Amino acid sequence: MAQQMEIICVGNELLIGKVVNTNAQWLAKRITTLGLSVNRITVIGDSVKEISAAIREAVRHKPQFIITTGGLGPTFDDKTLEGIAKALSRPLEVNPQALKMVEEKYRRYVEEGRIEKIELTPPRVKMAKLPAESNPLPNPVGTAPGVITKSNGVTIIALPGVPSEMEAIFDKSVAPLIKRAAGNVTFYETSIDVDEIMESDMAPLIDRVIHDNPYVYVKSHPSRTGEGKPHLELHLSTTAENSTTAKNRVSKALIQITELAQMKGGKTKPSKTK
Amino acid sequence: MAQQMEIICVGNELLIGKVVNTNAQWLAKRITTLGLSVNRITVIGDSVKEISAAIREAVRHKPQFIITTGGLGPTFDDKTLEGIAKALSRPLEVNPQALKMVEEKYRRYVEEGRIEKIELTPPRVKMAKLPAESNPLPNPVGTAPGVITKSNGVTIIALPGVPSEMEAIFDKSVAPLIKRAAGNVTFYETSIDVDEIMESDMAPLIDRVIHDNPYVYVKSHPSRTGEGKPHLELHLSTTAENSTTAKNRVSKALIQITELAQMKGGKTKPSKTK
Repeated sequence: MAQQMEIICVGNELLIGKVVNTNAQWLAKRITTLGLSVNRITVIGDSVKEISAAIREAVRHKPQFIITTGGLGPTFDDKTLEGIAKALSRPLEVNPQALKMVEEKYRRYVEEGRIEKIELTPPRVKMAKLPAESNPLPNPVGTAPGVITKSNGVTIIALPGVPSEMEAIFDKSVAPLIKRAAGNVTFYETSIDVDEIMESDMAPLIDRVIHDNPYVYVKSHPSRTGEGKPHLELHLSTTAENSTTAKNRVSKALIQITELAQMKGGKTKPSKTK
Repeated sequence: MAQQMEIICVGNELLIGKVVNTNAQWLAKRITTLGLSVNRITVIGDSVKEISAAIREAVRHKPQFIITTGGLGPTFDDKTLEGIAKALSRPLEVNPQALKMVEEKYRRYVEEGRIEKIELTPPRVKMAKLPAESNPLPNPVGTAPGVITKSNGVTIIALPGVPSEMEAIFDKSVAPLIKRAAGNVTFYETSIDVDEIMESDMAPLIDRVIHDNPYVYVKSHPSRTGEGKPHLELHLSTTAENSTTAKNRVSKALIQITELAQMKGGKTKPSKTK
């Protein structure tokens, strides 16, 4: 399959393990459900050099989209737009439309009594400094707008790191673009739990199902039950042109793997996780 | 700072957002605490081509270590060792020591009555097929051994994706290597919460503290309180040759940022998260 999407998460807090990368999971799930594949997720620190290197490497893979998270705020270490500008060899410049969005936010903060007057201080103007030839994406929740631009046929979208802001901009401005790029493709997934059979014994059975169902992706997730017995979750998924085809494909593989597991003495039941 | 560590997580379940990448967070936190910096985390799918490309790119960055997670099991889609072998242009071959480890595990499973006899089926032998010039790392919890090898001065370590197995191999065999590579370097971190001041107003104050404390890394994490008021968590961290120096450095920066925030009308208190 062609490269479709790369996600680049910017933030030292991710590299020191201070926080778990829920943004990457949220985006990956939404994008998959909308019908595109995420091919790679990259996490790098708040450094212009690291960000620009990661963007350049991702552009070289020629995905349809690159989405970044984090580093759009007003502080010194919010460097994502500088990194993107460097990667694309473009200047950073104040975007009038973005500046209007930022100003509008502070106007509302004044109305709400949170600040006394609108002062477009350098940290505030910074949020409106975009790489040349970019457009801002409105932020329904916070102050810093998202950013969208194109380079060599790759659409690059920068979203904030605060989850509520990232999700709001994605849903409003990015999801429709992805849906259009995906066309009518649908994703379908299901899981079953298999007990009392070891993963190494299930392996040849899974191989047979994969062979017989070339469009279904089957993955086994081993773990232990409380009593130390082997426990497997089998996750089956596919993308297809419509939901009926997708569901039928997965169902056929599910029936086959269930029968094979039971023939080998495995106990199966629908999985609680999706 | 030189490149020290890259983490590569293998697994389609991460790219479709089925699971959140807790392995990356666990590793990043442990490695940081042991005194090395994680420079990049990459997530790719269960594809030999993707894995070998990611390994090659990481080797080109010349970190001291590359740690991979996932893809060491017995099933067809466990492809990490094949990907590493391809990246390093080495054959995969049965490693006698690894085969002994796998055999020993199944001997124990027979003793525990979980299987009837030791049969070294192809899926089981697969777990002992390592890239040439590698060594296995004992798995105290599960079946598949970890793997360690070197290429162009980069130590490459492959760990399983099941968290309990990954963590057990890391603690037993990998942590001592990282500790030795880090020397006496210690990591220290602390956080304070700042309320009633906007991030854009804190930005110039943070810049001043960063300027005055070049070895302390300061990062602001904005969010909202329930009442919609601005709330900031400031995270301060450093690595130093000993814990006293590290603590003193962070404390000095903490006092300065607290005073500056209070002068601007901010309310500060120690953060609940670390």
